[in-house]
Order: sequence, then structure tokens, then C-alpha cells
Amino acid sequence: MASHQDVPKTCKVIMAETIAKGLLAEVKDTLKSIQQGTEGKPTLVAFLANGDPAAVKYAEWSKKTCEENGFHFDLRQVEKEALEGEIMAANEDNNVDGIIVYYPIFPGNPVHDKYIQETVSLAKDVEGLCHKHISNMYYNVRYLDPPQNLKKSILPCTPLAVVKILEYLQIYNSILPHGNRLFGKTITVINRSEVNGRPLAALLANDGATVYSVDLTGVQVFTRGQGIRQPRHQVQEKEGWTLEQCVPISDVIIGGVPSENYKVPIELVRDGAVCINFSSYRNFDGAAVKEKASIYVPSVGKVTIAVLLRNLVRLIANRPPVQSATESTLKAKSEAFVEG
Amino acid sequence: MASHQDVPKTCKVIMAETIAKGLLAEVKDTLKSIQQGTEGKPTLVAFLANGDPAAVKYAEWSKKTCEENGFHFDLRQVEKEALEGEIMAANEDNNVDGIIVYYPIFPGNPVHDKYIQETVSLAKDVEGLCHKHISNMYYNVRYLDPPQNLKKSILPCTPLAVVKILEYLQIYNSILPHGNRLFGKTITVINRSEVNGRPLAALLANDGATVYSVDLTGVQVFTRGQGIRQPRHQVQEKEGWTLEQCVPISDVIIGGVPSENYKVPIELVRDGAVCINFSSYRNFDGAAVKEKASIYVPSVGKVTIAVLLRNLVRLIANRPPVQSATESTLKAKSEAFVEG
Repeated sequence: MASHQDVPKTCKVIMAETIAKGLLAEVKDTLKSIQQGTEGKPTLVAFLANGDPAAVKYAEWSKKTCEENGFHFDLRQVEKEALEGEIMAANEDNNVDGIIVYYPIFPGNPVHDKYIQETVSLAKDVEGLCHKHISNMYYNVRYLDPPQNLKKSILPCTPLAVVKILEYLQIYNSILPHGNRLFGKTITVINRSEVNGRPLAALLANDGATVYSVDLTGVQVFTRGQGIRQPRHQVQEKEGWTLEQCVPISDVIIGGVPSENYKVPIELVRDGAVCINFSSYRNFDGAAVKEKASIYVPSVGKVTIAVLLRNLVRLIANRPPVQSATESTLKAKSEAFVEG
Repeated sequence: MASHQDVPKTCKVIMAETIAKGLLAEVKDTLKSIQQGTEGKPTLVAFLANGDPAAVKYAEWSKKTCEENGFHFDLRQVEKEALEGEIMAANEDNNVDGIIVYYPIFPGNPVHDKYIQETVSLAKDVEGLCHKHISNMYYNVRYLDPPQNLKKSILPCTPLAVVKILEYLQIYNSILPHGNRLFGKTITVINRSEVNGRPLAALLANDGATVYSVDLTGVQVFTRGQGIRQPRHQVQEKEGWTLEQCVPISDVIIGGVPSENYKVPIELVRDGAVCINFSSYRNFDGAAVKEKASIYVPSVGKVTIAVLLRNLVRLIANRPPVQSATESTLKAKSEAFVEG
């Protein structure tokens, strides 16, 4: 339209790649500092058991990013029924540093997939999907070993990628203390899946935001209470609410609807809002959102992969330091002596 | 109350002094770079013609800050009727770098005060109160000499101090381009005086905010239009609006009511809002605001003085480079020749 060309564009479009770059640089530095030149490349093993061509493509992309950043990526295509045994073998293999599984494995049987997630060793769970990691996330607990607090708990990749994007966009206010940096911000998350939308709403509310979590069943609000005085988020149903109530009052709108046909109703978006799409489909009409938003992030995939590597480096840092052969033998002997 | 002690406090109180420090360091650096060790201390002349004890106190405070930061502060107490002549003499005096006048001089006759403001030379108007400076501010013009754009226009001290505070608090989002960094923010300013509240609302709207400007006569909204597509702010009356409509939807509430008895109704302030007081009285009840706000700045005076010195350094930087005596003489002679 002519009118679109006549007026200055004020929306800043920020690509995931830009944000991923900073995270990958941080990953490289951390890797260098924990390895101290003594070890080989860390190995990430990825299990593909569903023959999904989209997963194959994602795996190829992950492989490229891994190798560019000093990691070894080992894609293992296995039969569904062999998967559990293969994961258990990888858990025991000292040459495997992290394990990723492409879900769904058993479509229509999410409990079986959940069982597979729990099969992955906590120490190699790079996706943060083991129960202990998920429970820590919901309870706003950041370490696996309180009160020592030396081992960091792992957060799921896509929700954490969105957090890292919001930090980059300065929606997190670094003037405020860690854990309270979203206080005063209102955010709508469209998607409440167990893997993405619900953990994301919880993470953002745990950091102080008022989060409206929207799916087909309705709207829930996640907050830390008046004055963010609760240590973790609480959830309330918003009876009768729809996007019409929550989008216009939101500083940030995050779309994650896994459908080609779904579009966020742009007429509800307030002037100057920040819009982020984490669906693999475009939840925002690109031309329309740029007429309204102050910042638009059209996809998050590259940040998700950077976060995956960040998690892998954390898993390595969480491990006890490698003992020399002599030390290990002595320790084993002394333990045997005590037990005996 | 016991309940106040039982719950964690989540409001971050930020003192003007903290913010002023950074500005004063910047002023020192700029001063060093423009002086290059060749000149003496810059001189700020302050005229006191109303015998106001509050102004005397403010002058003493200014003197202290000036001297701590490498400036000479010359307070001149004069009769009202002699003021105009004294200002004209200071305009001509090469040893005076900037001029400040404590208003009001003629209470009840603001046009006379306005006349005095216009008497100060544009090149020494450290308070940004000359018509050209004010007009540039309202029209969002940043230089005195377009299109060369070498001489920066001066902004009034208190409104600019509030802008600098909002930058420090990261309400300005540095991800966005200069001039658009408040896009998406809603701000209420309580006070619409010609010296403080109205210029402040204009500055904030020029930077992209939706600003509700409130005084006893009602509410006006200052914006750059839908999608901040206008080059400067426009103003609309909000018929029937009061604080009840604008405070609850505001990210930032700025109080500037010059009255000891006035308090912003805290029950209207949204959870996690940012509250700033630029009145010399406390417009926010300290205990109550800390229960609601994410950030509270109780006063701005020290930032205002830092901005005053920042303006003074800009005036010095705006001057043409000092010519050597020979050059000046030659130039004068050649000009005389051309004119003759």
C-alpha cells in the first residue's frame, strides 16, 4: 500500500542469529575455561527414532552449529523399540557428554514419551526434561545441590531461548536484582504446551512478570503475587478471558501456536509492544506486526540451538573434576575398605 | 506494620546522587577534551535577585558541586531593577561562560520573568530557557546550526534530568534507535508548568512515549501518533480524564506538584511501576510507594545540577575555537575592507 511507503517504519526487526552470536561466544569462553586444554571435543548424542524429516533437518542444522563451535555431534537413527536401551548405553558411556531425543516418539501416547525423557540420565539431560530439572524450574530453584549451589539446574531450551531473547531486548531490567527483573512487565504467551508454553510462562512469572498464558481451553495468569512477594509463581484461571482482554494490556506478546493458519490478531496489539514468535510457523503477519510493534523477533530457532550448547557446557561444568587413575584406584580401595 | 516486616521488599530505591555521579564523570571527561589544558576553570555566574532563602540554599549546593568538578561558581546578589543590566554585562564578558538566574523574579508577572529569560545570551543560556532553545525542544530539533549540526541545542535542566534518570533506569531501551527509545512506554507526568512539566511531557513524547500530562485543569496526552510516525509530538485533550484513568495504565509515574500536602494516590499505581519525584516536596508516600513500585527515585535535585554543568560544557563546546590575536586582527581588518 502506498501509505506504508510514505511513513517511516519504526519497528526494529531483530533476527535470532544476532542474539545467538553473543550466546555462542559466551559458550566458547566457558568451554575454554572449564576444559583448560586437557580434554577433546564434547560430544552431544542425538537420537532420532521417528523418521520425521523436519527433525532430520533440525538435526543437520544442529550438527553444523555444534561443529562450528567446537562440539562433536553424533546423530543416531534407531528403532523406537530399541531407543530406551540405546539411551541407557549412552548414559553409561564416558565419551557421551549430553543426550538429546527428537520427540514425539510415540505420537498419541505422551506418557510413553515422558517415560523416555526420564530414561535420560540427569547428568546428560541437555534439554532439561528430566523430572528434577522441570520441578526445579517450576519451584524457581536454580541449583541441583543446595546448599552448596555448585551444580546448576538445566532449563528447557526453547523457553530459556525466549528468556535470553528478552534479556537481549532489555525487557529484563538489569537495574533490578536477578530474579525480579521482569517486575512491572505484562506478557502474553500464546501456547501452554508442557514442553514450551507452560514452562515459559512459569519462568517469566518467576522472574517477576504478570504472564497471561493462553491456549484453546482459556486464559491463566501466572504471577508471584502482589509486589512479587512469593518465592515462586502461582496460577489463577481468568474465567471468561480471551486474547481480547490480555493482548491490549501486554508489553510483550509471544506466539507459539504450531499451526500454519494461526495469526495473532494484530488489531489487539498495543502500539509499541514487543512481538516474538517461537512457533516454527509465522504466528504474526510480518507486514502488519511491523506497523504496530517496537521490536519484532520472527523466529527463535538459532537461539534455541545456542542455548542447547550452553546447557551442554553447564552439564560438563557440573561434573566432579576428573580424577587421575591412581587417585581413583586409591579412592575405590579406601571405600571398599570402609564398606567391608 | 508487622505485615510490612514479614514480606520481602521488592522496590529498588535509587538516589539521585548515584545517577549524578555518572553524569559528572562524563562532564569532567568532556571538559578535559574540549579544553586541552589551555584554558582556566569555566565560570558559571548565578544571579539572585529575589532574596529567596531556598534559592540561596540551592545556590550554595550548586557552588559546592561546581567547585568539586573543576568549575568556578560566581553568585551575584543584585536588585531586581538592576538585573537586566547585570545580565547584559555578563553576556559581553568573555570571562563568563554560562548564566543562571533564580526565578521567579517578579512573582505574579510571569511575562516579565520571560522577558528576563530572553535577555540571557543564547550562547550563555545554560538553563535552556531562551526562546530558540525552547522552540527547538518542542520541535524535536537537536542542533542550533542545521544542516552543519555542530552546535547542540540546550535542553532545560530539570526535564533533561528526568530524561537522564529514565535512561539510567533503562526505561529508554537502547536496542531501539535514538529518538524512538521510549516507543511502547506509557508515562504520567503530574505537573504541566511551562518550565518543568510541559517541556518534560514533550521531551518524553518526542522520544516515542505516550505521555499523560496532568494538572488542575485536566489531562492532555502527548504522542508522536500511531506507530510514532510523526517527527514531533502532538497534544490532545483527554476530556473527562483524571489520574484514575491514566495512572493505572502507566509504566512510569512522575510527580512534580509543588505542594507539601499533595500525594499521588498510590492505590492507582500499578504493581511494578516506576515512580519518580521531581517536586522539592515528597509527592509519594515513601512507605506506600515501596509496597507497589519496582523502582522509586525520591528526588532529582543532584541530577539537575549535574545536567546544569553538562549544559555549561556544551555551551563551551558550541563556541567557535579561540583565534590567536594575530588571526583575529587580520580577520577584523579583512572584514572591514570588504564592508568598506
